[in-house]
Amino acid sequence: MAMDIAEELLKGNRLALSRAITAIENEYDNATEIMQKLYPHTGHAFVLGITGPPGAGKSTLTDKLARAYRDQGKTVGIIAIDPTSPFTGGAILGDRIRMNGLTMDEGVFIRSMGTRGSLGGLSHKTADAVKAMDAFGKDVIFVETVGVGQSEVDIVKAADTTMVVLIPGMGDDIQAIKAGILEIGDVFTINKADHDGADKLVREMNMMLDLDGVMKEWRPPIQKVIANQNEGIKETIENVENHFKYISENGILAQRRTERTKNEMLDVLNSNIGKYITNKLVATGELDEFVEKIKAHETDPYTVVAKVMKDMLK
Amino acid sequence: MAMDIAEELLKGNRLALSRAITAIENEYDNATEIMQKLYPHTGHAFVLGITGPPGAGKSTLTDKLARAYRDQGKTVGIIAIDPTSPFTGGAILGDRIRMNGLTMDEGVFIRSMGTRGSLGGLSHKTADAVKAMDAFGKDVIFVETVGVGQSEVDIVKAADTTMVVLIPGMGDDIQAIKAGILEIGDVFTINKADHDGADKLVREMNMMLDLDGVMKEWRPPIQKVIANQNEGIKETIENVENHFKYISENGILAQRRTERTKNEMLDVLNSNIGKYITNKLVATGELDEFVEKIKAHETDPYTVVAKVMKDMLK
Repeated sequence: MAMDIAEELLKGNRLALSRAITAIENEYDNATEIMQKLYPHTGHAFVLGITGPPGAGKSTLTDKLARAYRDQGKTVGIIAIDPTSPFTGGAILGDRIRMNGLTMDEGVFIRSMGTRGSLGGLSHKTADAVKAMDAFGKDVIFVETVGVGQSEVDIVKAADTTMVVLIPGMGDDIQAIKAGILEIGDVFTINKADHDGADKLVREMNMMLDLDGVMKEWRPPIQKVIANQNEGIKETIENVENHFKYISENGILAQRRTERTKNEMLDVLNSNIGKYITNKLVATGELDEFVEKIKAHETDPYTVVAKVMKDMLK
Repeated sequence: MAMDIAEELLKGNRLALSRAITAIENEYDNATEIMQKLYPHTGHAFVLGITGPPGAGKSTLTDKLARAYRDQGKTVGIIAIDPTSPFTGGAILGDRIRMNGLTMDEGVFIRSMGTRGSLGGLSHKTADAVKAMDAFGKDVIFVETVGVGQSEVDIVKAADTTMVVLIPGMGDDIQAIKAGILEIGDVFTINKADHDGADKLVREMNMMLDLDGVMKEWRPPIQKVIANQNEGIKETIENVENHFKYISENGILAQRRTERTKNEMLDVLNSNIGKYITNKLVATGELDEFVEKIKAHETDPYTVVAKVMKDMLK
């Protein structure tokens, strides 16, 4: 007999947690039912988003932070969003884990999720995976993403506190990145702080944050870190905890979570409606018909969309 | 009297092109009508996607390639997808352009588009901006994006040929990136080839492409480039033209464009339906009601979504 995934997960069965996330990731038929059962048990975990450009050392940093939380006696979940194909992603994550033995620790659950073929559903899949870990009982959940594009911004919306990791010497694009991250970073970490240009980067970031922060109550702190030497980890954890304390006491956390509930619901809604309508257009053969007519210049995509909406919506 | 943007654009009015893209970007009411009028005049331009991680020197490379095309007598459009807020993005692009005088050339039209607040609609907005430039009569249209995440993959779907730009010394994440780009790169460029590690990167890329390409007809070429010294630009253009020749002669171009038409239509459809339903839920006050009930654990997002779909879809 098949296991009741949600029930087993709530009992603390790691295999069930793993299966739940697989169901979420692959959009299995049972995913919705699992989530419906898990939902009432969510809302307890602290969710920390970690993002930054490629090469910033986010994996190493995440590992060190996870250990620090474990030393506090807290259980940890890690969701690593992998920009590669799922099959290679697993291997990369595997390598990383084997190196440091974090998976030997029963109090840590690590999972990578691939972005390939996700058709824009990644942010709500990530949010559901976070909820599964939350319902499982994890105290702290890390969501680690590579990059600072729109998809990363969407993903870190699942977080209570978002840490942006930068490194010295990132070339011209750093200007663009710095501006882009101001709106998402609650806490900044300058990793590889022993490299040339770290102090310059800290100065530049301070200037930008001072300029941006004039009207804001929370001034994001900047911490220099050398993750692979464990330097600055304690201070980084303090920064994160200070931010969480700040948003908890000011009602911002409650407000963020309400906003998140709303956005996640709309995300699931848009994704499901999109799938429903696409499937219907494929099944009736209309999709191919429309494409042929567009190619023949008998109509155009905008006219087709208006027609489909009229046909399908009440 | 207001100008007829589509009509003026088709006559070659640059201001009209600029206004059309502004309408697309900001989802003005007239955007759909403009696109309906422009659509029959599209399909002539060659679209080159350029993507790669921050700091890879994509802007410089794009400028050099654009000049090379101009030297062939072709007109050029450049759409730079900017991961930052629109207001800063414009400034950065402005700086870049002023430095090299490319905007002094009437045969070049450059436009940046911001990713902020795009709610996932960026890929179809980019596709529409490409169409506007296509209808305007541009021979070659560059779409330049920073990053290698899912959103970049979505954006380069608008391209006939996709170039991935890498640089030596990108740290651990290069492994993840390399795997992720295999499926999107038609042509690879190793910029800053005078830096340490360029040959190593070329060797690694060659190994990956050989492994990946066993069953494929097109083996993506790799070209070492020093963009700011104009080295390797001619060879890069040749690589791009060879790829375009290959896909044209093998029916792959026609197939890609059909696929693109289909995806773009579904993109617009999903985006419009999402907006329609969200607006309706906001207007009726249902959205807030649902969120309150979810927060009170009287229901959950998945149950709400099922109800809304039942209510709204025929």
